[in-house]
Amino acid sequence: MHAIAEFTIIPIGVGVSLSKYVAACEGVLEKSGLLYELHANGTNLEGEWDEVMQAIKSCHEKLHEMGAPRISTIIKMGTRTDREQKMAEKTASVRAKLKSSDSH
Amino acid sequence: MHAIAEFTIIPIGVGVSLSKYVAACEGVLEKSGLLYELHANGTNLEGEWDEVMQAIKSCHEKLHEMGAPRISTIIKMGTRTDREQKMAEKTASVRAKLKSSDSH
Amino acid sequence: MHAIAEFTIIPIGVGVSLSKYVAACEGVLEKSGLLYELHANGTNLEGEWDEVMQAIKSCHEKLHEMGAPRISTIIKMGTRTDREQKMAEKTASVRAKLKSSDSH
Amino acid sequence: MHAIAEFTIIPIGVGVSLSKYVAACEGVLEKSGLLYELHANGTNLEGEWDEVMQAIKSCHEKLHEMGAPRISTIIKMGTRTDREQKMAEKTASVRAKLKSSDSH
Repeated sequence: MHAIAEFTIIPIGVGVSLSKYVAACEGVLEKSGLLYELHANGTNLEGEWDEVMQAIKSCHEKLHEMGAPRISTIIKMGTRTDREQKMAEKTASVRAKLKSSDSH
Repeated sequence: MHAIAEFTIIPIGVGVSLSKYVAACEGVLEKSGLLYELHANGTNLEGEWDEVMQAIKSCHEKLHEMGAPRISTIIKMGTRTDREQKMAEKTASVRAKLKSSDSH
Repeated sequence: MHAIAEFTIIPIGVGVSLSKYVAACEGVLEKSGLLYELHANGTNLEGEWDEVMQAIKSCHEKLHEMGAPRISTIIKMGTRTDREQKMAEKTASVRAKLKSSDSH
Repeated sequence: MHAIAEFTIIPIGVGVSLSKYVAACEGVLEKSGLLYELHANGTNLEGEWDEVMQAIKSCHEKLHEMGAPRISTIIKMGTRTDREQKMAEKTASVRAKLKSSDSH
């Protein structure tokens, strides 16, 4: 089951600056081989359901190792059986609609 | 890694009434043996990370089988290494704080 | 526009124990007069869109006053125009489906 | 109170293709004058709390007008009092950490 996902990982109890932890998680994703993309409030990634979930779990393990005593993560998981879809197509599809409405 | 989780599963493309699908997912959770609790906007559950994620994946599979062509799920995953915590303690802890502030 | 909402407020930079802050937010909700309900991973509430959003904003303001330098909140907002719905009906509807499937 | 936000709007009961609705919501954001950025699983935006929330509410109103009988939206709201922060700085900060770890 292919999934298009997004997640935001929040280490709790390590102070107010979280970018070091987000960077460590990006390192984990890089090693995972999955397609991923950092944005201002989280990270998009796609792949097989189990691989996506394993990558997010590895981020939790990594951040706990770095000393985060508590972690709260928000995950969006999208799956579909009607057709294959890639992450890049989702924004492309919206942008095509925007463009066509501009021309009217 | 023990996790306290919450998720909301949204089947897309099956019309406006979703309770049949949520009920089917509750059936999946019942079979999983995990501790879970339905609330007005989702379901809390707890257990080992992999078991929790397997249960949510099984809900996606079940709902696709029932004909939902597309599913979007929001998951909150909480883990901690500083101490063990159970789902029931989280509300108990807040309620104790509320009670003590009432007495002042 | 009536909304059924759920939110989880996470103060960042105040250590690992958050129940004091969640309790303060419940105090804010109590004063708001809105219908709300604490659960293990957040709080359900319902009311007019603006009132719901004002209550969540007041929680942010309260927690910043208490010294939280950074706050991250996850909100689910549900609205519908096909019919009126109350929070309590959502779980009732799922439970009715579960019951009817048990009898088969 | 300045907020950095992210949201995903899901119209329910309008079939499986949602890009037309997401595009309409982007049109609403364009008119709002707020800084926003579409990504594969949602939209980042920033501004004053009330303006951000008004924009998201206007998206709900727009999509209901377009015929969506039910809408479910996930919102992440981040506020901080320790310092001002812009959306663009968040990814920049993570990327700086990634770069410095590459050099070791």
